[in-house]
Amino acid sequence: MQRTFIIIGHRAKTTSDFEFNDLPGSGGGIDTLSRCLATAFCLSNGIRKESRVFLILQGGKDAPKAIRFCGSELRGLNPDERSIAGIIRAALNKKAEMGVWAAISPGVYVSKASFGDVLHELSEEGATFIHLRESGVGLRDFEFPEDPCFILGDNTDLTESEEKALHAYRYRDVSVGPRSYHSDHCITMVQIEFDHRNL
Amino acid sequence: MQRTFIIIGHRAKTTSDFEFNDLPGSGGGIDTLSRCLATAFCLSNGIRKESRVFLILQGGKDAPKAIRFCGSELRGLNPDERSIAGIIRAALNKKAEMGVWAAISPGVYVSKASFGDVLHELSEEGATFIHLRESGVGLRDFEFPEDPCFILGDNTDLTESEEKALHAYRYRDVSVGPRSYHSDHCITMVQIEFDHRNL
Repeated sequence: MQRTFIIIGHRAKTTSDFEFNDLPGSGGGIDTLSRCLATAFCLSNGIRKESRVFLILQGGKDAPKAIRFCGSELRGLNPDERSIAGIIRAALNKKAEMGVWAAISPGVYVSKASFGDVLHELSEEGATFIHLRESGVGLRDFEFPEDPCFILGDNTDLTESEEKALHAYRYRDVSVGPRSYHSDHCITMVQIEFDHRNL
Repeated sequence: MQRTFIIIGHRAKTTSDFEFNDLPGSGGGIDTLSRCLATAFCLSNGIRKESRVFLILQGGKDAPKAIRFCGSELRGLNPDERSIAGIIRAALNKKAEMGVWAAISPGVYVSKASFGDVLHELSEEGATFIHLRESGVGLRDFEFPEDPCFILGDNTDLTESEEKALHAYRYRDVSVGPRSYHSDHCITMVQIEFDHRNL
C-alpha cells in the first residue's frame, strides 16, 4: 500500500544558502526534515519503495516551496542528515514553478507549491488525510484507509490556518503513543505499524 | 523503569580527529550513534530521564572505548547529529582509563572499557540483556524483565565473538518488527512500547 507523508517545515529555508554545519539554525530545521526522510525511506537493507514524502518549506525568501520524494524511483538514500540536506539543497537550487514538479534527480522533484496546494493535489488523487498529533485515535487501533496520507509538523504542530486548510478535507486525528514525540519518531511508528499489518 | 541500551559502533572512531562534515566515513558511523542517542533520549518536549546509553566504540587507534550517557543527569540534548557528535568528540578528547568512568559533562562519562567490560558491569547490577535482532520474540508480546538492557549493533549486527560474550549471561532475543531496521528505529520502537505500558 502506498504510504504518503506531508511534513511541514515551518522555518525551513527555501533558498540554498544554508550552512551544512548549522542545519538547525541556518537551515531553519532542515536537520529535522532530513531525519524524517531517513525514517520514511530507509530500511537497514534498502529503500521503502512504497513511501512518498512531500516536504513543505515555509522559511526564507522564496517561501513556500514543496519537494516531493518518491521511494519507487529513488536509487538509494543515505540516512545521515548531511547527505539528505545535500539533496534538499540541490532541489532548492532549481527554479521552482507553480503547477509543475521539476525533476532534480531520480525520485526528487520541486515545485512552487504551498501546503494547501499539495493537500488539493493529493485530495484529487483520493487520499485520506491523517493528522499525527498527541490527541487522536491510537495508531494500533486505527483502521488505515485506502490511500493514507499522514501529516506532521516539524518541531511545532500545525498552525491554526494550516489546520483550517486541512479541515476542508476528509481527515482523521491519530496518535502514535502517550507522550510527545519528534516527527521522525512518529514516522518510524507508522512505518513499522504498516509492516506489522503487512500492508 | 530504567531503560538501558548498549550500542556497538564497530567502526566508530575512538580518537577525536574525525570530520564533522563526514561522520559516516571519517567518524566510522558516528552519525548512526548520534541518531541512536537522539531516539534514546529526546522527546519533543524534553529528555527521557529514565534512559541510559552505553556506546561501545571499536574503531581507530585507541579502541575500545565506552561512553556512558545518563538521562537523569543530562541537562538537555539537541537531536541533530552534529550537536551529538560534538559531545562524543569531547568525550574522546578526555583520557580514558580502565575501571574508571571519567566525567565529561553532566551525564556524560568515558572509560577504557570494551563490550565485555560493560556487559560484566551491568550484569553485576542485575541487568537482563535483550538482543534486538531480526529473529526473536516480538517486542509487543515480550514481557520486560526488571532491569532491561537492550543491545544493538550499529549498521551491522553483533559479531560472532560479541554474541559469544553476550551468551555468557542471561539474555533474550527480541524483534521489533517483520523487516530489517536501522538501530535508531529499533530504539524508537522500544521506547514507545515502554510508554504504552506506562513502565
